[in-house]
Amino acid sequence: MVSAPLPTVEFWFEFASNYSYLSVMRIEDEARRQGVRLIWKPFLLGPIFRALGMENSPFVEQKQKGAYVQRDMARQCRKYGLAPWTPPSVFPRLSVLPARIALLGADQPWIGAFSRAVMELNFAKDRDINAPDQLAPILAALGLPAADLLGRAQADSNKARLRQQTEEAGRRGIFGAPTFFVDEEMFWGNDRLEDAFQMAREKAQATASA
Amino acid sequence: MVSAPLPTVEFWFEFASNYSYLSVMRIEDEARRQGVRLIWKPFLLGPIFRALGMENSPFVEQKQKGAYVQRDMARQCRKYGLAPWTPPSVFPRLSVLPARIALLGADQPWIGAFSRAVMELNFAKDRDINAPDQLAPILAALGLPAADLLGRAQADSNKARLRQQTEEAGRRGIFGAPTFFVDEEMFWGNDRLEDAFQMAREKAQATASA
Repeated sequence: MVSAPLPTVEFWFEFASNYSYLSVMRIEDEARRQGVRLIWKPFLLGPIFRALGMENSPFVEQKQKGAYVQRDMARQCRKYGLAPWTPPSVFPRLSVLPARIALLGADQPWIGAFSRAVMELNFAKDRDINAPDQLAPILAALGLPAADLLGRAQADSNKARLRQQTEEAGRRGIFGAPTFFVDEEMFWGNDRLEDAFQMAREKAQATASA
Repeated sequence: MVSAPLPTVEFWFEFASNYSYLSVMRIEDEARRQGVRLIWKPFLLGPIFRALGMENSPFVEQKQKGAYVQRDMARQCRKYGLAPWTPPSVFPRLSVLPARIALLGADQPWIGAFSRAVMELNFAKDRDINAPDQLAPILAALGLPAADLLGRAQADSNKARLRQQTEEAGRRGIFGAPTFFVDEEMFWGNDRLEDAFQMAREKAQATASA
């Protein structure tokens, strides 16, 4: 008897991205509920936007869209039962340090809790997410060696890994976050999380019964 | 006894927009099912994009996003049970003539059927939607006086009305299509149709029980 393959979704997210916030807060529960395996893929949107010829987030570049996003986030936070939406006083925030830590923890059991805590720091508590003294308490609260992880996060080899991961995002056609992949099938935006999960389950089922 | 106010949604759409296509095809059924009154608001995206400093649709301007939209549309058409997605050979198509006709019919019982037929012409049959000889058969099939309507659509007063409606779209912060309004609450994109309907129903209920 061959066991069925586990439905698998790659989850590409950026700590500075407000729609990534919505997905980070709910994806682990959803994955557990649906029996989907997650591959956490932190990356940086800045280099992606610049490669596409944009100076900044479209929510900053286009005022009309930026104004709308505030209304939309307020409603979405209510819909998902998150803290009331408070527009971050800095947007988009520098996010390279938490991304480097998330890269170290991507296949560790603490990745979900760490990512949610960083997102809340940014989008509920309006705090600098790129400061070691903001991130150390999060790591400590998870029972992790904060100083050691912060050191390893800033090692040259780990910095290079994050650059490579961001380059991979560009090569695979990612232009925003969150983005989900089921094999090479791409889904863009928190609104497509359900569709990505459904495709992952259908594919796994098809493989199992083939 | 005062009767409850009817939940009402303004539906702003553009015949050249592929995500408007998804909403046009399903919105009238959904409104009937949920007891929502629709106010049909055809408008032109071209002047909106130009006012925001864009030369063309973002799906044309940004190649990565444009490529993604093709995959997304294929999946969305399947999800909604529409004809298999065929990328239009011209995108975005000129749509001023059908928009002018839709403006004449916005409060007529044929607006839904007319709009669906034009959308199918563009996104399922890959035909010019700005040609009188493509639109006349649609009007005739609906039992309407095609020549008369085509004439009235091109009258100066009706042309001016469409310009005014498009200006209203800009004033109200619209930057894409479809867009839904419940009073001044704006919802952008086919993915927000359900949320807009729900808010309309909640508002009507709140008014009724106040």
